[in-house]
Amino acid sequence: MYNSLGNILRLTTFGESHGVAIGGVLDGFPAGVVLDFDEVEKQLSRRKTGQSSLTTSRKEDDEVEFLSGIYEGKSTGHSIGFMVRNTNQKSEEYTHLEHVYRPSHADFTYQEKYGIRDVRGGGRASARETTNWVIAGALAKRLIPDIQISSFVSSVEHVDFHYDENSTDLSQIDSNHIRCPDADKAKEMIAAIEKAKMEGDSVGGIITCVVKNMPIGLGEPIFHKLEAELAKAMLTINACKGFEIGSGFDGTRMRGSEHNDSWQQDRTTKTNHSGGIQGGISNGMDLVFRLAFKPTSTIMQTQSTINDKNEVVELEGKGRHDPCVLPRAVPIVDALTAFVLTDMFLMSKIRTNF
Amino acid sequence: MYNSLGNILRLTTFGESHGVAIGGVLDGFPAGVVLDFDEVEKQLSRRKTGQSSLTTSRKEDDEVEFLSGIYEGKSTGHSIGFMVRNTNQKSEEYTHLEHVYRPSHADFTYQEKYGIRDVRGGGRASARETTNWVIAGALAKRLIPDIQISSFVSSVEHVDFHYDENSTDLSQIDSNHIRCPDADKAKEMIAAIEKAKMEGDSVGGIITCVVKNMPIGLGEPIFHKLEAELAKAMLTINACKGFEIGSGFDGTRMRGSEHNDSWQQDRTTKTNHSGGIQGGISNGMDLVFRLAFKPTSTIMQTQSTINDKNEVVELEGKGRHDPCVLPRAVPIVDALTAFVLTDMFLMSKIRTNF
Amino acid sequence: MYNSLGNILRLTTFGESHGVAIGGVLDGFPAGVVLDFDEVEKQLSRRKTGQSSLTTSRKEDDEVEFLSGIYEGKSTGHSIGFMVRNTNQKSEEYTHLEHVYRPSHADFTYQEKYGIRDVRGGGRASARETTNWVIAGALAKRLIPDIQISSFVSSVEHVDFHYDENSTDLSQIDSNHIRCPDADKAKEMIAAIEKAKMEGDSVGGIITCVVKNMPIGLGEPIFHKLEAELAKAMLTINACKGFEIGSGFDGTRMRGSEHNDSWQQDRTTKTNHSGGIQGGISNGMDLVFRLAFKPTSTIMQTQSTINDKNEVVELEGKGRHDPCVLPRAVPIVDALTAFVLTDMFLMSKIRTNF
Amino acid sequence: MYNSLGNILRLTTFGESHGVAIGGVLDGFPAGVVLDFDEVEKQLSRRKTGQSSLTTSRKEDDEVEFLSGIYEGKSTGHSIGFMVRNTNQKSEEYTHLEHVYRPSHADFTYQEKYGIRDVRGGGRASARETTNWVIAGALAKRLIPDIQISSFVSSVEHVDFHYDENSTDLSQIDSNHIRCPDADKAKEMIAAIEKAKMEGDSVGGIITCVVKNMPIGLGEPIFHKLEAELAKAMLTINACKGFEIGSGFDGTRMRGSEHNDSWQQDRTTKTNHSGGIQGGISNGMDLVFRLAFKPTSTIMQTQSTINDKNEVVELEGKGRHDPCVLPRAVPIVDALTAFVLTDMFLMSKIRTNF
Repeated sequence: MYNSLGNILRLTTFGESHGVAIGGVLDGFPAGVVLDFDEVEKQLSRRKTGQSSLTTSRKEDDEVEFLSGIYEGKSTGHSIGFMVRNTNQKSEEYTHLEHVYRPSHADFTYQEKYGIRDVRGGGRASARETTNWVIAGALAKRLIPDIQISSFVSSVEHVDFHYDENSTDLSQIDSNHIRCPDADKAKEMIAAIEKAKMEGDSVGGIITCVVKNMPIGLGEPIFHKLEAELAKAMLTINACKGFEIGSGFDGTRMRGSEHNDSWQQDRTTKTNHSGGIQGGISNGMDLVFRLAFKPTSTIMQTQSTINDKNEVVELEGKGRHDPCVLPRAVPIVDALTAFVLTDMFLMSKIRTNF
Repeated sequence: MYNSLGNILRLTTFGESHGVAIGGVLDGFPAGVVLDFDEVEKQLSRRKTGQSSLTTSRKEDDEVEFLSGIYEGKSTGHSIGFMVRNTNQKSEEYTHLEHVYRPSHADFTYQEKYGIRDVRGGGRASARETTNWVIAGALAKRLIPDIQISSFVSSVEHVDFHYDENSTDLSQIDSNHIRCPDADKAKEMIAAIEKAKMEGDSVGGIITCVVKNMPIGLGEPIFHKLEAELAKAMLTINACKGFEIGSGFDGTRMRGSEHNDSWQQDRTTKTNHSGGIQGGISNGMDLVFRLAFKPTSTIMQTQSTINDKNEVVELEGKGRHDPCVLPRAVPIVDALTAFVLTDMFLMSKIRTNF
Repeated sequence: MYNSLGNILRLTTFGESHGVAIGGVLDGFPAGVVLDFDEVEKQLSRRKTGQSSLTTSRKEDDEVEFLSGIYEGKSTGHSIGFMVRNTNQKSEEYTHLEHVYRPSHADFTYQEKYGIRDVRGGGRASARETTNWVIAGALAKRLIPDIQISSFVSSVEHVDFHYDENSTDLSQIDSNHIRCPDADKAKEMIAAIEKAKMEGDSVGGIITCVVKNMPIGLGEPIFHKLEAELAKAMLTINACKGFEIGSGFDGTRMRGSEHNDSWQQDRTTKTNHSGGIQGGISNGMDLVFRLAFKPTSTIMQTQSTINDKNEVVELEGKGRHDPCVLPRAVPIVDALTAFVLTDMFLMSKIRTNF
Repeated sequence: MYNSLGNILRLTTFGESHGVAIGGVLDGFPAGVVLDFDEVEKQLSRRKTGQSSLTTSRKEDDEVEFLSGIYEGKSTGHSIGFMVRNTNQKSEEYTHLEHVYRPSHADFTYQEKYGIRDVRGGGRASARETTNWVIAGALAKRLIPDIQISSFVSSVEHVDFHYDENSTDLSQIDSNHIRCPDADKAKEMIAAIEKAKMEGDSVGGIITCVVKNMPIGLGEPIFHKLEAELAKAMLTINACKGFEIGSGFDGTRMRGSEHNDSWQQDRTTKTNHSGGIQGGISNGMDLVFRLAFKPTSTIMQTQSTINDKNEVVELEGKGRHDPCVLPRAVPIVDALTAFVLTDMFLMSKIRTNF
């Protein structure tokens, strides 16, 4: 329940940053599907650390081991177990944090909620968990091969890139380290990150996700609206503080006459302020949604905080961390989007008469 | 599953705008609780139509009938069934819509998904369903009596009101028709709505929700992060297109050194950019989140759209509708917030040793 | 959760014996299905009281009101709400039970668990709840029209009827009041009940359920084995104390060489000791399972028991009750079987590749 | 969903007999509990093969590896991942079964349902999965330390042992290979098994489970009745064909006046025909239930069956198998009982006022 995502397709995960392993069980996966392990590897390598100067130098060689549910390369219809052993952990790096609550981390809330916490690398709160999601998302994507999911960085600190349906070349996302489809903006973004890094600081930004070739009819009308399922999944990503779809917050400035998406003869809408969803159900237009990521909490500066005796202490910045999570968050957004859409796709299979 | 909200506390709803009744089953409610029916009535009357010139004149006398689970005014621990009969429906008002897909409504997606749809009043897509949520939220609130939930309108079209933790008087929310705690801003907002209404148009805006007196420890670390549960609930509200918590989208412009919330000796944080949640779990600070509402789809202007034969047709604006959903959405946000927090509160009861 | 049955098709119920109403929400029902309301009425009339001298004279005119999810006689894909108002309750009949715990009733356990209980007619523990199941089962049956479900009374106290696949005429089940397909055995059974009734006593017995025309592939291999889902559903029926499928308890006396069901060229098995299920999944042979029902707890004799002050008291037998629940349990078994099979049928729709 | 057991405490499993590993995720386990790994080892060793001449000589050295959710020997409140690598598999033993459907096995149903199946060792249908349940049950038991669960073999083929609440010494269960608390009966049972084995045949029997020191109040009144949850769990055990609680099938011969359990001044009942549950909720008396196990399907005799071309073929008996599953099923029944009771115990924590 608490560590499970999805309704028909269901991922249940486990694992701490510096424990034995992370992993999960992917359940509800239909039988007879040729699995795409290359896609899993590809997406994992997009998520992994040490790709560039923008990401932490902590090296994670994420080797997935599939444990069940697969026979001669095909899904058997049974639960797919998988795991990634943790290696290259340096637990001693965390001994100075045993009694200290880092600002804007989960240290305090975990300790208060559970009365116990694995201090090494943030334990269960570590973004290492997102590896599980990338694996599950890459497997799930195989069930909706025609749908094209493209996430990219559209903003870093004060540098903005505006997506344009007609001119943005989504094939260029991976052509630079920040994963922005515009080469010039990418350079500016990278410069902003490097400046912050040099100053021992971190930055946030925005990821935009565009989904093309959407089928009509995904999403359920009330408590499983497609946008609600997406919002829930996205807000589970570490550091994500906001979600908007279609016109989002800007749309609150518009009049209804301007905002309404008129239907055209070819069953497309003239505009797409709805972001591809109406009444909780996909209408066949592109999904377009945006996610706000706060700047990384771990910084290389001294900060004031308290310890578990409520004493104010100074916390020195050290360790290996990303000054900006955005480029590595892109494949995570892709994965969760794939997962949610596949789940809704499977659900849609049982909603009409046979 | 598809019409259920919540994990431990679970609401399952039914009903169409112009059907026999709407209602629900509230399950998982602990036994022996004196229920507060006045609170239910109060919240329903905040949601109902015809309160002012800002809302539709369609009159709904929402009379809740509780059907089970209550004995001598107390919960019995069994499922609480309730219903509200639909009255004052004018189904004939909708005959001209039988074959037409209104722009930015659920007409097209429902028809495509199900191959059948109740055209009267939007059927299941009607905001009438939110009545069920208000009832459930008001009942649930009784389980977390100390938590103070205050939603209010913080923006209408171009008129913004900025919430300030120290100066905003949350007791003034209901002192005006728009439900903004600032009297002057409220007047401006009302003027904006009336202008739009006069022009046969509609406007959107933003609702801010502030939750005070939060216990520490609500929310689950991975797929039931408190912000994820809230986002999911809020994105189920008709016309809601965005959710942000704490610093939200603005926070993407900040540096980590500025954004981090330093812990202080009294176990509060100096700033609250996190919006009261860290690692998915409440940290005892106020929850502060904001919701984007698009302008109402139904407008009193002629629009171009298609019918179910893919022919372009002109759709005349008529009927009784809200030019702005915000004031009536305020109690809905309150209710869903209460529901989610109660659900997480009950879940927290079983997370530590006994 | 606690008042819900089913995985894909989900029934959530509410209601107490002497409360306002009983009812439920049937969710996950596919769209576009012409519903069979006559079947609902027919099954309800099989379940109702006052059919013969074998059942309680308390008259229940169960009038179902469908509240949602239906448009022009077809399912819309939305949750189907329904309710049956309670009428003809005589609550005063129960005042003498307010502080007394009847032997083998739920009085004591409810009071201890919840600290509060609706004493009138057993409250939520009343078999009146089974009305909801009959309604849901009859609706669900429409989704698996080819499957033939036939429950019947195969034993009353010491009178046994042995089902024989070849000679038993299942069309005769409703030809007598006890619902045994054999007229002679039926007479003996009825005589046994009437004797017990005259003596102010009650009897139990066995219901056998035979399901013909089963598709291959219903049931999930581990925790949703078809027999496990059936057992769970059947053990929810009031007074049911046992479940066996195929060879059941008698099969424990057999050798493997005798018990194994050999496959034949036409893909049937020579014997059917498995009762139609292998590895948790239907194999196309008839399902055959049997349910033990204890004698009704309410008897017309004076019994010794305690009250809520732990004082021993004498409890007089009075009121209107069934001396034998079996004939009225038959449609309940039919309904739950239909519900479980439909749920598993829907689940099977998403288990293989598309 | 499909591979998950439990409501509040939730076990999700994976694994095939001859795949890489079996394992699971135990979720909803409260934080701060000192785990009892010795108990896990002890129960696993009771379940393992090669304990005596009664069980298969296939040697499984089940080494559990705990992967997460544990810190310094205590639960952290996060999901507990675990796995057992498969070793000592002889897949080549199964090549002759690739196209053949063994009688009373899952071969046919798996192939038909999924269109694909892992033929080696029965794949997911293997009783090897029960290892996962034993691990989870042993961990869960730690949360209900005072409850005493004692399963034992009460019948093998035609040899019956009758449990007597007063005279049966439950401490003797493990004193013999068949796990019957009566030494003489145990010898007879073992003789029956050895005779069948010598004849290349297999036998079935009955396991009785007695639970002492039960708290009052476990179980939910309608669809999560304690007996229904137990029945469901037990019917998931391979070869289990029947479940009865309290008086069970024999109780159908009794009169109500005889069957009713009279309450006594000390809040116990004079008799316990109810088997410790009334209205779905435990009443504090011992739980007593019985499970029917059919004789093992795999026998050392030649059998007639069909292959996947619907041709009749002769199937020779070979391989290493148990002539009787009962002694190894005892710890599985213990484990599932512990799991269900713990789940219901956690659920009961949120059912009354705070």
